Amino acid sequence: MQVGQTLQAMRRATPLVQCITNYVAMNIAANVLLAAGASPAMVSDAEEAGEFAGFADALTVNIGTLSPPFVAGMRAAIAGAEGAGTPWVLDPVACQATVLRRRVAADLLALKPTIIRANASEILSLAGEASRGQGVDGRDSTASAEGAARRLAQRTGGVVAMTGAVDFVTDGARAVRIAGGSVWMPLNTALGCSLTGLCGAFAAVAAPFEASVAALALFAVAGSRAHGAAEGPGSFAPLFLDALHHVRPEDLDREARIEGLEEVPA
Amino acid sequence: MQVGQTLQAMRRATPLVQCITNYVAMNIAANVLLAAGASPAMVSDAEEAGEFAGFADALTVNIGTLSPPFVAGMRAAIAGAEGAGTPWVLDPVACQATVLRRRVAADLLALKPTIIRANASEILSLAGEASRGQGVDGRDSTASAEGAARRLAQRTGGVVAMTGAVDFVTDGARAVRIAGGSVWMPLNTALGCSLTGLCGAFAAVAAPFEASVAALALFAVAGSRAHGAAEGPGSFAPLFLDALHHVRPEDLDREARIEGLEEVPA
Amino acid sequence: MQVGQTLQAMRRATPLVQCITNYVAMNIAANVLLAAGASPAMVSDAEEAGEFAGFADALTVNIGTLSPPFVAGMRAAIAGAEGAGTPWVLDPVACQATVLRRRVAADLLALKPTIIRANASEILSLAGEASRGQGVDGRDSTASAEGAARRLAQRTGGVVAMTGAVDFVTDGARAVRIAGGSVWMPLNTALGCSLTGLCGAFAAVAAPFEASVAALALFAVAGSRAHGAAEGPGSFAPLFLDALHHVRPEDLDREARIEGLEEVPA
Repeated sequence: MQVGQTLQAMRRATPLVQCITNYVAMNIAANVLLAAGASPAMVSDAEEAGEFAGFADALTVNIGTLSPPFVAGMRAAIAGAEGAGTPWVLDPVACQATVLRRRVAADLLALKPTIIRANASEILSLAGEASRGQGVDGRDSTASAEGAARRLAQRTGGVVAMTGAVDFVTDGARAVRIAGGSVWMPLNTALGCSLTGLCGAFAAVAAPFEASVAALALFAVAGSRAHGAAEGPGSFAPLFLDALHHVRPEDLDREARIEGLEEVPA
Repeated sequence: MQVGQTLQAMRRATPLVQCITNYVAMNIAANVLLAAGASPAMVSDAEEAGEFAGFADALTVNIGTLSPPFVAGMRAAIAGAEGAGTPWVLDPVACQATVLRRRVAADLLALKPTIIRANASEILSLAGEASRGQGVDGRDSTASAEGAARRLAQRTGGVVAMTGAVDFVTDGARAVRIAGGSVWMPLNTALGCSLTGLCGAFAAVAAPFEASVAALALFAVAGSRAHGAAEGPGSFAPLFLDALHHVRPEDLDREARIEGLEEVPA
Repeated sequence: MQVGQTLQAMRRATPLVQCITNYVAMNIAANVLLAAGASPAMVSDAEEAGEFAGFADALTVNIGTLSPPFVAGMRAAIAGAEGAGTPWVLDPVACQATVLRRRVAADLLALKPTIIRANASEILSLAGEASRGQGVDGRDSTASAEGAARRLAQRTGGVVAMTGAVDFVTDGARAVRIAGGSVWMPLNTALGCSLTGLCGAFAAVAAPFEASVAALALFAVAGSRAHGAAEGPGSFAPLFLDALHHVRPEDLDREARIEGLEEVPA
């Protein structure tokens, strides 16, 4: 897959990505988008979220720190994105954990996100299958949830970008696995949320499947690069942002470890 | 005291710590807990905070950026924790500063936190004694507030973990002082709030006094380690997270500078 | 201009700066103020914001993540600051972007901020002139907005501190340009918001024009120093905080690149 070309297109466009994300993620997600080459805007209040989504290049919606005002803002923004034909990405953080999360995640899923970026526990929960997750850290492996991810993609008509030690992206028929990254990544809070933002940035310039693969591949390559020089989870973070900035399209094509899987007949 | 053993127990359990903390602290507190070996979850909305506290391993409540929705979430979460017999930690940030803070801190104190983690100015205010603090930085020394800390512990039946250049932990009878850390720590915002989260992580696996001592000792040792390689408050932060991750139980036992004080007769 | 002397005065005072700022900026803004030598407090709820502003040394108001509770807190805090004769700084983030932002920015402008710290797109919008900005990143150059900045200062009676590749500070008659900084600064989210906080810290000890120039000069010098050792936007951040801490008054006088412009007759 031409992930390098997609990265080049994203950087040329510097897409304006409206991120409705949680309080933990806001700063690092903005820095991830800036480092990678996009233009983030954290705009979530119901009074302006829909208007903003009308001219943003992509929207991302993350339920990490849920509250009624956030949900109202998400709905307004999604309506604005739908109206403008703008892609939007759902990140159903810990949707298996509480009644509120299960309900809000289901409601948002019904609005048919362009891309769902989640870990295996969240995918299993969204697909209505048994999960071992409880907190925000999924405890299921992506390998155990590949079937659920395919079924979820088929049901919603969107792309599922499931992340973990090995990532899995599917549109229900096509699927790839992406390897790479670093053990320090799950010890850096909100990197998954930040990757959701990056999926939005790529979705502004490419089809949902190709966008998801490029975003996850860039994350994995930058994570692998930063890993070598890091001495722990703290020193990893600045090196990772540096790497996101410095990975060139040709580096991404060369270093990405993407395994194409056999297509599933519809 | 066997702080190394307590650290080992905490890491084995990877306790799920529900942190209701302020917007400034959310990211760094989550990273501190992840680096140390716990699993943080920032869940504060009243609709889900009580449910979540029912299955979390510990709860921490921090009033740094107060607002009515936060207070409602704190009350719901504390009720959930009480119902489940889950330990909870109070962090009364700048409780001496405004009418609202004094009132909310007093209300939460009446709910009998398992541990109170605070600076000297906050302890003096909670104990009803004169403080020189005003902003969020305490201006009182822990030495001047040891008596107030003991009285506060006796009155509430909880443990008081007071932090400063030298820390002081007491359950009203027993007390220790803990030295270490770095001058860069008070120049890194929300490290105290993050330590509150860490007290929660240890309280999930140990009695409140032992948990507090282990948490503060780990912070002090990691701070001392990071200090050597840091060139200022900025470069200190990633090194500190690395150190939190790399301090082993046997390192903690060897490097912790804990001074046991004579027990006060009840 | 004696920027070194102003820096020395600020550090001696350790001013308590109440920052009502957005969720993206809260952590980094607090760390910037701490590194530079001030004492930040993020207090924004309407119930306590006015009381706090009554004893804070400066107030800063940033509309980055707008919502009704924030606006209520801003109004209460500004009233408290006005009542106490305390300087306050307005940061009209992306005020050109939505109906809500234009309205709130205009309302706050009418309250006559002591200093307006903004990028060129925001200044053009506040001044009622055409802007090319849309997201939070201004797309206009400061050179194109110097006239608008002067007119805005004259209209409001405050100082305008406009930042970009080259900064421009004016009180309507006097004006200076300040060079320096690093290309990594716009790739670090919320550094502009953090600079707004720093303008507040200096305004606590100096007249608005001199305070703004000193704050922007310190940022530019620290940015230039950090640039040399940084390898990208991620590694820049900790080095920048270190530099903010280590720049001495005499360094600031020597390294600041301030160009005084001819005074405009009133």
